[in-house]
Amino acid sequence: MARDLTVSIDAMGGDAGPGIVVAALARAVLRHPAVKFILHGDEDELKPLLAKRGKLAERVATRHATERVRMDEKPGLALRRGRNTSMWRAIDSVKTKEAEVVISAGNTGALMAMAMFQLGTLEGISRPAIAALWPTKRGQSVVLDVGANVVVSAEQLVDFAVMGEAFARAILGLERPTVGILNVGSEDMKGNDAVKGAAHILRSNSTLPIEFAGFVEGDDISEGTVDVIVTDGFSGNIALKTAEGTAKLVGYYLRSALRRSFLGRLGGFIAGGALNVLRRKLDPRASGGGIFLGLDGVVVKSHGGADELGFASALDMAIDMARAGVIARIIADRAGVHAAVEPEAAAS
Amino acid sequence: MARDLTVSIDAMGGDAGPGIVVAALARAVLRHPAVKFILHGDEDELKPLLAKRGKLAERVATRHATERVRMDEKPGLALRRGRNTSMWRAIDSVKTKEAEVVISAGNTGALMAMAMFQLGTLEGISRPAIAALWPTKRGQSVVLDVGANVVVSAEQLVDFAVMGEAFARAILGLERPTVGILNVGSEDMKGNDAVKGAAHILRSNSTLPIEFAGFVEGDDISEGTVDVIVTDGFSGNIALKTAEGTAKLVGYYLRSALRRSFLGRLGGFIAGGALNVLRRKLDPRASGGGIFLGLDGVVVKSHGGADELGFASALDMAIDMARAGVIARIIADRAGVHAAVEPEAAAS
Repeated sequence: MARDLTVSIDAMGGDAGPGIVVAALARAVLRHPAVKFILHGDEDELKPLLAKRGKLAERVATRHATERVRMDEKPGLALRRGRNTSMWRAIDSVKTKEAEVVISAGNTGALMAMAMFQLGTLEGISRPAIAALWPTKRGQSVVLDVGANVVVSAEQLVDFAVMGEAFARAILGLERPTVGILNVGSEDMKGNDAVKGAAHILRSNSTLPIEFAGFVEGDDISEGTVDVIVTDGFSGNIALKTAEGTAKLVGYYLRSALRRSFLGRLGGFIAGGALNVLRRKLDPRASGGGIFLGLDGVVVKSHGGADELGFASALDMAIDMARAGVIARIIADRAGVHAAVEPEAAAS
Repeated sequence: MARDLTVSIDAMGGDAGPGIVVAALARAVLRHPAVKFILHGDEDELKPLLAKRGKLAERVATRHATERVRMDEKPGLALRRGRNTSMWRAIDSVKTKEAEVVISAGNTGALMAMAMFQLGTLEGISRPAIAALWPTKRGQSVVLDVGANVVVSAEQLVDFAVMGEAFARAILGLERPTVGILNVGSEDMKGNDAVKGAAHILRSNSTLPIEFAGFVEGDDISEGTVDVIVTDGFSGNIALKTAEGTAKLVGYYLRSALRRSFLGRLGGFIAGGALNVLRRKLDPRASGGGIFLGLDGVVVKSHGGADELGFASALDMAIDMARAGVIARIIADRAGVHAAVEPEAAAS
């Protein structure tokens, strides 16, 4: 049996509120019989929701929090006024080592700000990154940063590479993931100073358990050319949302094309099962939200618009990450890179 | 009848060579009976290709060029050694006013470098941008820059907005296009200094014939939220290629989902017509390549992998741009913005 661990949940985040969190939890307790769950939020709302699900209340501890972070609240304000929010309390359970991992579908900026304040970053890492699992032709790849750092240095991109490979080894089970840096061309001369500098450092480093593939382009992400794609949070966020928009557009075209003629409607009806498979593959809920990497604690952000299925999938990811010891891997691999880089820097 | 104009064509660019250029030209002469065409390239290759197409040779003037720019050649090298290439000669026809517009499916970097050197940029514009027409739920939007400028200033983004609206008014026939700046969130506080600065300038400017919609996100592009999306060439190129990759991935999923079961195969067969409509909508060939804006001349870059249909579509776009006087509009609108901005800058 898997070792016992505890998951701390912000029950009040997300657009849909605690209803979908409790529904997702009902799935999770069946899948993870040895895991404990702590639910932070308004007990007046939570207790009736739990009571409706039979024995779920026995598996879940609730902790009353009088306030919640609003989805549109500025991170700085949330941080200043937020000690009594369900989000703050949920993170606190990880800080006090009561839980191994925290999950929230709430305000991303506030979650990042509070997690940085309460848990701190790993040694040497100035800002955490948000990683996303991206569906590809070959399966899944890890893309980071998808939104935490609008401007990055070469050294930060190298840290993202370390965090990405550690995550890919732990969660995708790859021994030696391939890593690429997102750029506007695959030639060495292309790109801004940060990507060129990061490529130089990764190319001359042999301690990391990766195959460094150099630069990749936007279409390489869904092609699955590499397992880990490293980028700044500005381009990464734009790429992620552009891909979501494109998948929606294709679905929209497909529906209107199939509706246009009788044969199209008939064909669409008959092919319904196959088209449902497609819908599931493209469903952003299945990918389970963003993972905050670089913090001294496992923090998973479920999509704000996540439904029961989406939140359940983010819970699975959070549990996998805690079990796989992603943080310990990041610390060890980062130490290796810097031990290799620093003597060289000192010599120059 | 439309006024007479002349199109200068680099016949030797692109992955497929002059065969597809001549085939596309055979379509274009039928669609544009009043337009003249000059074909630059190796006459030993071009003449037999033209001869095979009956009277096409009568409508097309050929100019012998002994060399060609390789697809993987560095722009700087092409610029230094390239005076006898078909690309250089094709641009030269616009420089000498023999033609109103030049089109090439060749090396993008070399085409940009040569066009900047030979034609120069419009007054006050330091670097041109590459614009792309993007399919959306509402029709088409213009996205720029998709690759020419890896790092941009706020002022450059404002110039992109001017070039984009002038193009949208001329080609999409919009009187007052909506314009948005691509960012990682729609709140004012988000983003880097360049996008924040550009938003400030556009918000306080009333001379431009646009509705400024502030910041938009990646999924707004294919949603068609605004007519013109302004971004730096790094993020824009990554967004464009990510969208291409996503569309390909969805097509791949769709084919494998439909193949998986007998009913799926049958449904796919029956719905074939509708699915072909989808394929055409998503076909990157139909969008006709990138448009170089900010140069003192109309330069259209067809996709390097374009086939006959793609090159013909890029030819249509080039002719439309020349007829609509896009360059004169950019000059006039840019003068208006700067007349409005400068007194304010002087006062601060």
